[in-house]
Parts: sequence; C-alpha cells; structure tokens
Amino acid sequence: MKLGMIGLGKMGSNMAKRLINFNHEVVVYDVNIDNVNSLKKYGAIASNSIEELINLLPEQKIIWVMVPAGEITENLINKLSNLLSKNDIIIDGGNSNYKESERRASFLKEKKIEFVDVGTSGGIWGLTEGYCLMVGGKKEVFEKTEPLYRSLAPENGYIYTGPSGSGHFVKMVHNGIEYGMMQAYAEGFELLHSKKEYDLDLHEISKVWDHGSVIRSWLLQLISNIFEDKDYIKDIRGYVPDSGEGRWTVEEAISQSVSMPVITLSLMQRFRSRKEETFSDKVLAALRNQFGGHEIKKGDK
Amino acid sequence: MKLGMIGLGKMGSNMAKRLINFNHEVVVYDVNIDNVNSLKKYGAIASNSIEELINLLPEQKIIWVMVPAGEITENLINKLSNLLSKNDIIIDGGNSNYKESERRASFLKEKKIEFVDVGTSGGIWGLTEGYCLMVGGKKEVFEKTEPLYRSLAPENGYIYTGPSGSGHFVKMVHNGIEYGMMQAYAEGFELLHSKKEYDLDLHEISKVWDHGSVIRSWLLQLISNIFEDKDYIKDIRGYVPDSGEGRWTVEEAISQSVSMPVITLSLMQRFRSRKEETFSDKVLAALRNQFGGHEIKKGDK
Amino acid sequence: MKLGMIGLGKMGSNMAKRLINFNHEVVVYDVNIDNVNSLKKYGAIASNSIEELINLLPEQKIIWVMVPAGEITENLINKLSNLLSKNDIIIDGGNSNYKESERRASFLKEKKIEFVDVGTSGGIWGLTEGYCLMVGGKKEVFEKTEPLYRSLAPENGYIYTGPSGSGHFVKMVHNGIEYGMMQAYAEGFELLHSKKEYDLDLHEISKVWDHGSVIRSWLLQLISNIFEDKDYIKDIRGYVPDSGEGRWTVEEAISQSVSMPVITLSLMQRFRSRKEETFSDKVLAALRNQFGGHEIKKGDK
Amino acid sequence: MKLGMIGLGKMGSNMAKRLINFNHEVVVYDVNIDNVNSLKKYGAIASNSIEELINLLPEQKIIWVMVPAGEITENLINKLSNLLSKNDIIIDGGNSNYKESERRASFLKEKKIEFVDVGTSGGIWGLTEGYCLMVGGKKEVFEKTEPLYRSLAPENGYIYTGPSGSGHFVKMVHNGIEYGMMQAYAEGFELLHSKKEYDLDLHEISKVWDHGSVIRSWLLQLISNIFEDKDYIKDIRGYVPDSGEGRWTVEEAISQSVSMPVITLSLMQRFRSRKEETFSDKVLAALRNQFGGHEIKKGDK
Repeated sequence: MKLGMIGLGKMGSNMAKRLINFNHEVVVYDVNIDNVNSLKKYGAIASNSIEELINLLPEQKIIWVMVPAGEITENLINKLSNLLSKNDIIIDGGNSNYKESERRASFLKEKKIEFVDVGTSGGIWGLTEGYCLMVGGKKEVFEKTEPLYRSLAPENGYIYTGPSGSGHFVKMVHNGIEYGMMQAYAEGFELLHSKKEYDLDLHEISKVWDHGSVIRSWLLQLISNIFEDKDYIKDIRGYVPDSGEGRWTVEEAISQSVSMPVITLSLMQRFRSRKEETFSDKVLAALRNQFGGHEIKKGDK
Repeated sequence: MKLGMIGLGKMGSNMAKRLINFNHEVVVYDVNIDNVNSLKKYGAIASNSIEELINLLPEQKIIWVMVPAGEITENLINKLSNLLSKNDIIIDGGNSNYKESERRASFLKEKKIEFVDVGTSGGIWGLTEGYCLMVGGKKEVFEKTEPLYRSLAPENGYIYTGPSGSGHFVKMVHNGIEYGMMQAYAEGFELLHSKKEYDLDLHEISKVWDHGSVIRSWLLQLISNIFEDKDYIKDIRGYVPDSGEGRWTVEEAISQSVSMPVITLSLMQRFRSRKEETFSDKVLAALRNQFGGHEIKKGDK
Repeated sequence: MKLGMIGLGKMGSNMAKRLINFNHEVVVYDVNIDNVNSLKKYGAIASNSIEELINLLPEQKIIWVMVPAGEITENLINKLSNLLSKNDIIIDGGNSNYKESERRASFLKEKKIEFVDVGTSGGIWGLTEGYCLMVGGKKEVFEKTEPLYRSLAPENGYIYTGPSGSGHFVKMVHNGIEYGMMQAYAEGFELLHSKKEYDLDLHEISKVWDHGSVIRSWLLQLISNIFEDKDYIKDIRGYVPDSGEGRWTVEEAISQSVSMPVITLSLMQRFRSRKEETFSDKVLAALRNQFGGHEIKKGDK
Repeated sequence: MKLGMIGLGKMGSNMAKRLINFNHEVVVYDVNIDNVNSLKKYGAIASNSIEELINLLPEQKIIWVMVPAGEITENLINKLSNLLSKNDIIIDGGNSNYKESERRASFLKEKKIEFVDVGTSGGIWGLTEGYCLMVGGKKEVFEKTEPLYRSLAPENGYIYTGPSGSGHFVKMVHNGIEYGMMQAYAEGFELLHSKKEYDLDLHEISKVWDHGSVIRSWLLQLISNIFEDKDYIKDIRGYVPDSGEGRWTVEEAISQSVSMPVITLSLMQRFRSRKEETFSDKVLAALRNQFGGHEIKKGDK
C-alpha cells in the first residue's frame, strides 16, 4: 500500500523501514530533516512538510501518525483534520490515552475522516521481530488497512480489538502488566544480589531460567543481556521514568473500582526511584524522634 | 546412570519417566504401590521399600528425593541418613526451604553422606519440555551427578548455583517472581474483563500478545489456554493456595531489609482470595458507621 | 449571623442545629420537607424553596451548601448563581473535589459572587464536639464569614488554608490519611482476632491502648465502641464503600508523581471488600492448574 | 513495692523514676555506672552488680528487666535464672519477640521462677503521661505485681492480656498499627507539601486537625511539634530505622495467612528509606533501555 508516515523517531523510523521491507510505498515526514533523509536512503519517499506528504498520497489517503502522545499528537491530528478529505484515514500508532482516541474518533467522524487507534508493542526490536498491534476502530477501516498490520506484525501478531479507543485501551493494560512483570523480576534479582554469601551469578541464572522454567519470557532474555557485562549495572542510576500508560491503567482501575495492588505499586516504585529521599520519610524519622527519642541523621546522605 | 527415585507424585513420576527416556536406570519407590507399578510399566525398576531400593543400587548410591517439602522430606532424609554409607548421594529435588537444605547438608556431612539441593521448575510440562534445574552443593558432587541434570533439563536448562542451599534459594526467588508475574497478568486481565463496553475477547488478546509484544512469555501462553473455553473461567472459584516459597521469599526480604512490595502483595492477595470476607473489612464498615453514621450491611453476602 | 443552609442530611441538619445553638439565624431548605420541619422545631427559619430561602436573607446573602458532592452540588450552585447578586457568598461545606471548587470559584467570580470551599470533618459527632473546618477562598470573605466557623468548630478547630480549592484539597488529604489509619487499625485487630490461642479481649485492648499508648486516637475510641458488644461484629458484613476523596487523593498523588503506597492500598482494599471473589483470583487459580496441575475449586463458595 | 530494675536507658530510667515518684523502692543496676548514679540522686537504691541488686531485694524478689531485646535480654534472663530462687519474679518490659517470651516462660517454669512479659508503650513521654502496659503471664503473678503497673500506667492504662507471650504479642501488633498510622500521616503530609501552588502551612494544618477532625490523635500532636520550626524538617534525613516489632507483625501475618498490605508496606518503605537507590531500580532502568532504547542516567545522583 501507499501511506504517509509522520514521526520518524525510534519507533516511527523502524516501522517505516519494516513497511518498506514489505514493499509498501512510504511517504515520510518528520520535523527533523535528518530523519527524513535517513529514511529516503532506505527507500522512503521524502517530503518537506505535512502538506507535501498529503499531496504525494493517492485518493483515500492513509496517514500513520507516530509522534509523542499528548499535545503533539493532538496538534498534528487537528492539523490533519483540516487538510484531509472525506474517507481519508488517520492511524494513531502512538501511546495515546484511549479516552483521547475515543474523543478524536468522534471529532473526526463529524468531518467524515476515518480514525484508527493502534496500540503498538515491541520497542526497538520490532524492526526485525515485528510489532504486536492492537487495532481499534471501524471494522471495515481495519480491513482496508490490514495489509499494513500484516507487514508490521509477526505471524498472528495483530488483532482487531473493537470500537475506537479499544486498541489503545488494550495497549494501556498491556503496559500496566509490563510494569508489574518488570517490578517482579527486579525485586527477585535484588534479592539474589543481596544474598552476598552465595555470590550468585545473575547472568547465568537469568539465562538458565529462560530454559524450561515457569518464568521464562522475552523480558527475561533482555535481563540476561543486562547482566552480560558485570560492571554495567554498577555504573547506571536507578532512575525509572514512566511514559503515562501505567498511570492511566491505575486511574482506570480506580474509576472501575478494581483492586490492582501490584500494577499500582510498580508505578509508585518508579515515582520513588526518582527521589533521593522523600518528605514522608523525613516525617517518619522526625516522628520516631518525637515519641521515642530515637536518633535522627542530619546533613547529606 | 543408575539412581533411586523416591516420591512418584506429579513431579517425581514425570521426572523418572524423562530419565528413563534418556536411558538412565531408575529404581523407584513410593508409599502408593500403584504409582510404583505404573512406573514399572514405563521401564523403571520397582521396589517395595526404601531398604529394597537402596539394595538395588550400586556403590556410591544416588537417591533422588521428590516428596513434599517439610516434615515428609525431613523424615525421609533422616531415615536415609541411617541407611546410606559414606560417599552416597542424596539429591533433594523438591521445594524445600533453603535453610533446611543448608542444615541437612551440614548434618549429612558429619555422616560423610553427600547432599545436593536441586530447585526444579517446569511443572507438569517438564516431561516433554524439560525441567529448569538450579543445583547447589559441592562442585564435584554436582559434576558426578551432572548426567542426570543434562537429561532432565532442556538445552542450557540447568546451572550449578554454588554452596549447599543455593539451589533451593534460587528456586525460592524464582517462585517469588512467578507470584508477581502471575498477579500482574491477572490484574491486567481483570481490567480488560471489567471494561464491559468494549466486550473484549480475552482469548484473542492473550494470543496476540504472545507475538511480538513486550510481555510475551510462557505464562501468557498458558493464560491463553485458560480462555480458550469462554465458560471455563466462570465455573471455577478464585481460591488461590500457596506452597510456601512465596512466604519464604518475603521472609528473606524482611530479614535482608529489602523492599519487595510486588512479590509481597502477590502473596497477600492469595491469602485474601481464600476468605469470603475479612475481619478487618468488618472493622472498617463498623468504624465508618461509628463516625459518619454510614449504613452497614448485615446478614449473608 | 443570618445565613441560609441548603441540604439537611446527617451533616447539614446537625450543622444547622449547632449554628442555632450559637445564636445564629438559620434559614433552612431541603428537598425533603420533613427535614425542614424538624429543623423548624429546633429553631430554624423554614423555607419551601431555594427562591424563598434567598428572599428571607438580608443583603450580602450567605448560603451554606451542604448537599452530596458531584452533580447535585453542581446543579445547586449553578441555580444559585442565577438567583444571587454581586457580593453574595456561597459556602460549599460538602466533600467536593477541590478542582471543581477551583473551577466554581472562577465561574462565580465572573458573576461577582463570592465562593468559599470548606472541608468539614467530624461526622455525626460534630454537633456536640464541633467540626474541624478547612476554609479556602478570598481572605476577606473568610473573615466576613468567620463567626460561622468559630461556632461550628471546637476551640482552635478551623483554619484559613489559602486560595479557592485549598480548603477542599486539605480535607481530601485528611480523608486519605483517614483511610490509611483505619486500615492500619483494622489489620491490627484482625491479627489479634486471628490469634485464637490467646483468646484476646479486643474490647479491653482497644480501651487500654487509648491510655498512654503511642497509637491512642479518636478513631481508636470509636473502635472501642464497636467491640463493646461482642456479637455486633459477627453480624455485620465487611462491605466497605468509599465516598470519593480517597480516590482523588490517589489520583492527585499520581499526577504529582508522589508514591503513596499505604493510602492507595487502603482504597484498593475497599474495592476488594465489595466482591465475593475477583476475576483476577480466578485467573490465578486457573493458571496454577495450567502449569502445576494444582487442584481447582468449583461451584459456589 | 520493692523491686529491682536492670537497664537504665531512655525507657528504664524514666520508668524507675516514675515508680519512685509513686513511692516504690527501686534497686537499680546498669552496665553504665553514670546511669546508676543519676538514678541514685533521684532516690533509687544503687547497686554495682546484678548479684548485689539481688541481695538488696527481699524474699520473692521482683526484677524488672528493661534492656534491648534479643541477645542482651536472653543473656540477662539466663544469668538471672541461675541467681534467683523459687517464686522469684522476672518481668521483661522490653520489646521482646512474643515467641521468645513464651519460650522463656517455659524455661523459667522448670526452675519455678515466675515470668511476666509486659509490652510497654509511651516512649519518652511515659514518665509524665504514664505508660500503656500489656501484661502476659500467670494471673496470680500479674495480681501480685499489679501495684507496679498501676503506678506506671495512667488511669485505665494497663491490662492483663492472658498467658505468657500475650503481653508482648499485643504490644507487637500495637507497633504494627503504629507503623501503618505513621506512614498514613507521612504520605498525607508529603502530598500537602508537594502542592506548591497552595503554599500550605503544615504546622497550622497539623494543629487544626487535632481539634474535631476524624484523624485527631496523639501522633498528630507530635507531628505538629515537628512542624513548629519550619526549617527543622529540611535539615534532617529521611532515614527510618525499625526496631523489630514491625517485622514480627508481618511474619505473624504471613504465618497466619492474614493479608496486611498497609502494615507490611509501611515496613518496606522503611527499608527503602535507608538506601539512596536500589538494585531493583537499576534493573528497571536497564530493562527499559533494553526493550525501548530509553535513556539511562549514569554516575552519581
């Protein structure tokens, strides 16, 4: 198929490449001209503006949006809504909040523009291994654009999830689970690490667990990469950002009155990781001193 | 090799079969004679007592113990310690507490009997897929018995972890991680399930996530089996036992002052699952009534 | 002072009575005429409609709104905004979300109507013991209405918290803390209760802890009321509602990237309390069966 | 009554003083001679050794042990068991594990020495406000020593809890609740603190909450002391030790299969507070980089 791809970051550029590998014609645009040129060398059709990109596409234009969620996606889709025509298709493959996707689908529907929300998993490995895609929107628009998903995903690696928003909803929950799994592994390896008297080889253990154990997984294979160089983990900081979907998962749980302790605490541990110390811990230390006369530490850590 | 296998439950009988498949000579014993007969048909050498089993083994006898952890393992190893001779080898492949294994190794050392603690993962699938084995004890005893692990495990599926106790320690942490991963998946699927307006197909989602997504894993494949029959999950109760290793993991975390919120709460959710309601929830309901006059529900649920 | 009080539920009627006790003139209205009549007997000035209530007030009318948060408060304040004049004062003493209070203050400011958000704590005991009041809004409007707070609160029991929204914000956090404290007590008493071999007297323990122990508190005194009749707790159900402020506290924590494990889990335990069993627990039970062949319970609990 | 008091730290010396204030005759001993001399000036009878202390007591000697739990208490009680005679009474008022107290009661029973386990709450304020005492042991020995508890406690501030161990058990749960309450307050104040746009006055809020609010408590009064000097909290470190009873509470919960998320996480937050960063957070940061190419921070915090 011929499509436009806007946003050539880590995810967008790799997805464009994979589509080119599968013989799609990909017109690309990015605010960074270097990214455009790089894709041009790979076989993409370059464009210097969103308008030019649109002009280079045939009737019933298909534009894949792969830019940061939030304001940037919002502005881009608003701009596209003014430039596109009836029956054109916008695919948001980024990590948008599913409620935004529901809202955008309604807004675009008024303009007769089709909207597809695609949850995309696979990270930087997707180029070679394929992306797992969760696709929400009208069934017939999904079918119209299905050749793209078939190329981007590995075998059996894409799914039509239902109405607009459902693709990003399923991806959101996927990421919530990811937080919990990561935290479970991280806690386990910390306990192995802290058992100094056994001097355990974390690299060997992470490798062996991937062969026949109940906890074998792709994440475990990546953990094994981490421990390949014993010094690597020593030099990095335990500062763990989050990209929004974990928060939304917890907010969804709260709004549905569903208890999700493990995913929620995985998120909160990330918050904690970004601080050297917390105000609440200071209050605790001071309070122990108040009632018990317990010693307080002062000054820098 | 020729070895004795005591304990022919789900795990022990499958492990005996896999050893037989790999041309080891396996003398078997179980308190249940049916289990012994069943293995005999499969090619094992039957015995009617522990004493007979021992007599059927050559010099430097090797006995694999695969019985429930705790008192049964304790009594069996005590009994074996009185029947075996210098240089004989006891392998405990069950889910024993690593501290017990440390203690047993010391106790058997006084009698010059060798002891190996083997953490075994893989469940009922181990017969065909192989078991992941974590082996603690003396290096030379590990090497002496290595042909057994090579046959039981898939390729790259066993490891020498270090001194006595370390095999069961690593397996304990493995199970702790397993609790956390299971809970993360379970919470995610509950959130998908509770989003009634999307009417999501949990079976299809569990399958697609196994192709290219970040959370693909063996456990996810098993989850996909669960959702194959839509009615299955409706008919079962959410009663979740635990077999001890999760508790020990948390106790170890506490004794090492390591914060492990996710694994710990996974354990506590299991405790909660076994009760229709808790005393603490009653106290909360009554207390809300006390200060706010909020309504209290009475009678049966 | 002379003021109007709209909303004569458990909180509103007691607050009206306390104001009357302190010689304020209180014009009351409620959708339920019985509540109005009841207050009339207590000394309030009755009204049959919001319009009548407004007419009965002098210049720079002061109206205290004490109705359920959310839609009912929203509709009432919208209605009042059309009936009141410049410099009139609306006081929202209910449990409104602080963001709504910020928005309402802005909206009313356009109409030159003053708005005060008052977080009110004390429950059904406030009539006799006084209410703790956290007051947000313009400083001069706070001062203008201060005689009301002085009468409603016990000595030193009210505070000017700052700009509009801050009163309800501080009350929201108060309730978050309340959730955590209640859960801490509840868990402790469950552990005492489950120690069957000691046959502990929870009533005596709750009483003695209130004399000299570190955990003495007003909530503990209420807990002691609960255990006065030993059979009471047996007959009630552990079904624990929540009224919104716990949720908002957690959402605020997430939006500020603050880790609040204890308050968050207190909320989630309440969600859990309302279900006999969870979908996630069913998934766990089924998954244990999948990999380990562990038994599954079926049928009704 | 006349009694011996061994251990004159913060708790022991204040308790000796309070007993003296109530006209008991207190023979004191401490490894630190300065502590003994200090109490002598206060009216105690000094002794230079445990043997001398024992000699100074009349028949049916009563010795109150107030030394650090664990090894020091163990050694002291063992020594006393060799020096005391039939019907003498040892009271352990420290924070011993209740299982140790059960064991010590049995051990001393063989020697016909009586043992009382007293859980003591109140901290450094006990001297003036009295201590809350939870007393386990034989009923008649409790009654024999009751004058001491009556003097040490405020009115209604002591209780006979039941058999040996139960006093320390109830005190252990008390401390578990204390952890949860403290954490709930600390989290709430952190959220108030982090709401920069409101510039809230934590001192005023902590004070007002103590008048009429649902969360009023003694701990809250102490929190209000903390915020009296605005700079105090800035200068101290959020390093929060624990003294054992929180751990035992969680271990007891696990051994009884009781879910106690809030008390458990309060403990784990303390573990976390003592580390600048954790190994698990490093694993998370590295893992995000593995699958998503997300940036990693290096070097010192």
